[in-house]
Amino acid sequence: MIDPSYEIIGIIAAILTTSGFIPQVYKIYKEKNAKGVSLTMYLILIIGVLLWLVYGILIGSLSIIIANSVTALLQLCVIIFKLKN
Amino acid sequence: MIDPSYEIIGIIAAILTTSGFIPQVYKIYKEKNAKGVSLTMYLILIIGVLLWLVYGILIGSLSIIIANSVTALLQLCVIIFKLKN
Repeated sequence: MIDPSYEIIGIIAAILTTSGFIPQVYKIYKEKNAKGVSLTMYLILIIGVLLWLVYGILIGSLSIIIANSVTALLQLCVIIFKLKN
Repeated sequence: MIDPSYEIIGIIAAILTTSGFIPQVYKIYKEKNAKGVSLTMYLILIIGVLLWLVYGILIGSLSIIIANSVTALLQLCVIIFKLKN
């Protein structure tokens, strides 16, 4: 297990980097338009994020697990929206 | 130290998620225009990425160190371009 005091830094990092992704999802939801985003790019990104999730589980890092679960869900929303339109 | 076989998964994850950021930097460089990106957002993101870097050093994760060093450099390029224009 990773030192809990290290996890505090990881959790703050996770909140900051994940929150950067929220405005994009909100913009697509509000405008009901995902033309500006690339499906290929999102598919590459979500595979990367899911691999980070596997990595986080393997090394027992709570920060990596939380950050990448939330990011994967947000990216999945964008991909579903993109495929439906 | 983290198991080297785990690091392979982390490195692949790092390549996939970092590469997703390159088209944005290239677009700004090519168009010589960073109007579409938010400075506040990039400042929040780079603080998050630098905290991930600290976290990676603390837990001894090569994948996290590499991924976040490259991402921080790319984000720094965007921030410098944004401030100069």
